[in-house]
Amino acid sequence: MDLSTVGEFGLIELINDVIQPTLHTPSVAARRTVIGIGDDTAAWAGSDALQLATTDSLVEDVHFSFNWCAWEDLGHKSLAVNLSDIAAMGGVALYALVSLSCPGDVDSDSIVSFYKGMTGLATEHGVVIIGGNLTRSPFVTSSVFVMGESPTGRLLRRSSARPGDVIAVTGSLGAAAAALTLLTREGCAPAYTPECLRHALVRPRPRLNEGRQLADAGVECAIDVSDGLLSDLSHICECSRTNATIRIDQLPVSPECREVSLDPVSLALSGGEAYELLFTCPDRIVQKVMSQLDCPVTVIGQIQSTSDTPSVITLDQDNRPIDTHGTGWRHF
Amino acid sequence: MDLSTVGEFGLIELINDVIQPTLHTPSVAARRTVIGIGDDTAAWAGSDALQLATTDSLVEDVHFSFNWCAWEDLGHKSLAVNLSDIAAMGGVALYALVSLSCPGDVDSDSIVSFYKGMTGLATEHGVVIIGGNLTRSPFVTSSVFVMGESPTGRLLRRSSARPGDVIAVTGSLGAAAAALTLLTREGCAPAYTPECLRHALVRPRPRLNEGRQLADAGVECAIDVSDGLLSDLSHICECSRTNATIRIDQLPVSPECREVSLDPVSLALSGGEAYELLFTCPDRIVQKVMSQLDCPVTVIGQIQSTSDTPSVITLDQDNRPIDTHGTGWRHF
Repeated sequence: MDLSTVGEFGLIELINDVIQPTLHTPSVAARRTVIGIGDDTAAWAGSDALQLATTDSLVEDVHFSFNWCAWEDLGHKSLAVNLSDIAAMGGVALYALVSLSCPGDVDSDSIVSFYKGMTGLATEHGVVIIGGNLTRSPFVTSSVFVMGESPTGRLLRRSSARPGDVIAVTGSLGAAAAALTLLTREGCAPAYTPECLRHALVRPRPRLNEGRQLADAGVECAIDVSDGLLSDLSHICECSRTNATIRIDQLPVSPECREVSLDPVSLALSGGEAYELLFTCPDRIVQKVMSQLDCPVTVIGQIQSTSDTPSVITLDQDNRPIDTHGTGWRHF
Repeated sequence: MDLSTVGEFGLIELINDVIQPTLHTPSVAARRTVIGIGDDTAAWAGSDALQLATTDSLVEDVHFSFNWCAWEDLGHKSLAVNLSDIAAMGGVALYALVSLSCPGDVDSDSIVSFYKGMTGLATEHGVVIIGGNLTRSPFVTSSVFVMGESPTGRLLRRSSARPGDVIAVTGSLGAAAAALTLLTREGCAPAYTPECLRHALVRPRPRLNEGRQLADAGVECAIDVSDGLLSDLSHICECSRTNATIRIDQLPVSPECREVSLDPVSLALSGGEAYELLFTCPDRIVQKVMSQLDCPVTVIGQIQSTSDTPSVITLDQDNRPIDTHGTGWRHF
């Protein structure tokens, strides 16, 4: 049934049904919920902990296409990119509000699928989908807001990198970027894209547990790799006023990248959408982190001197600087 | 300069400059701010108070047109519609996050104007613009997320109307709806629209102080009039499982409405965008409220019996039910 037929309130009822599991998990957020969907605002019991909030939007035919991203994928990813920001601060995610705009002729089943995808990821991390908003629009835009907390107050900041820190990254890089490259080649039909690559692109796993473990282990500096490794490392260097070097032969390139005819190193360096955590810390801490985290952690470089004109230098296996163009996703 | 030239980070710097006044007012929110724009998430000191959160979006050519809504108006209104939701709960607004999508060829001055409009309203209410997100999009969508608190825990709920309560509304109704009607007549050029009407449409005043005063006075039920009086009163009746009657001769029709050739009563009954507070309470409380609030408060009807099939009946000056079509804004 299209949305004009179901109507706003019919749709809100449908959505309310789909998101119920997020309220019925034994999570802190569920326990603290006072008002969910259906009044002028959502409400929950406050706490003295440091509060975190972030928002990110996905726009049809800018960030995704329904040619390769199903509604359920979109629901998952819309939440995941926000949870990744909370992870990059070392926080716990608690509540999500969703602003979804779409054409009136969209089928209500599509909206239900969107919320199913989001609910799956939300319940996994104890996040309650507590409110939102639906509006008409010529094409689909999903803006999600996530609220979280830092129970310990120890935050992972972009500005805390210090000379001598090693630079490390969780998981592997390049798979999502490979999929994006194959699926959005201008002027030609989407290339064959292995499902594992497409999955990496549309179903990123936010590193929430890992972010908290990093903060607990004493790491103080992190960012999530959303724009691309070089670009996101530059953000750290600019905020921390430091230079950095990374070595391409140490990059944890996703093995799946090597199965397609693209340059895996370039994907890992400059490709976006990985949603891994890039962090810096003293060497003794990274050793501890490597033994504690369930995912791979790879040291890829080092923070060098402080600098008023911060830069990132990429070194080849012989320690020679190489030229890196394309430094990641450009928003405009 | 267009956005592609300024770039994402140039733009973030510009925005950060514009919103500084929201951080440098002696507000509770400013004092509690820990991290503003520039890291993975915003952060602020938490509190034990009941937390409130809401989100609302404005979409170009669905909710507004640049033919009659300047960028500065859009910034104001994008925040105002969210503050109005916090007001309708009797809360204090604290923090706003802004997801703005727009074409890459938009001038950076336009974005600065948008944030100026928002900053003006934010400082007035002690709200800090603490974070956000900018994305490319074929046309403009603004999604704002506002966090607030209820210092007393006394919330104005849609579900708290009780038989015998009077129904009252702050301010006056119809001016914004008159402007919208004149400016968006299908198939003809926008009609001449007095500036006072256009202003009512693009610069709504959220009733935050009034919402708190209502809660303090013992009012327990309210909603903000965004979809239209009849439509929003129906929401109260559905949530409270009650019937209601209102009298058209008691409606506080905006005097400006009477200067244009539209039916003022119909505008006041069914026109949206007023952002006044519609509330119900025992008669003795409304008397107190009338003497305390700085704005007009008008009793327009009464909550009748409880009902499994709630309805709103509109009565003429002779107490005869009249037929009311068009019950407000349809989102789909």
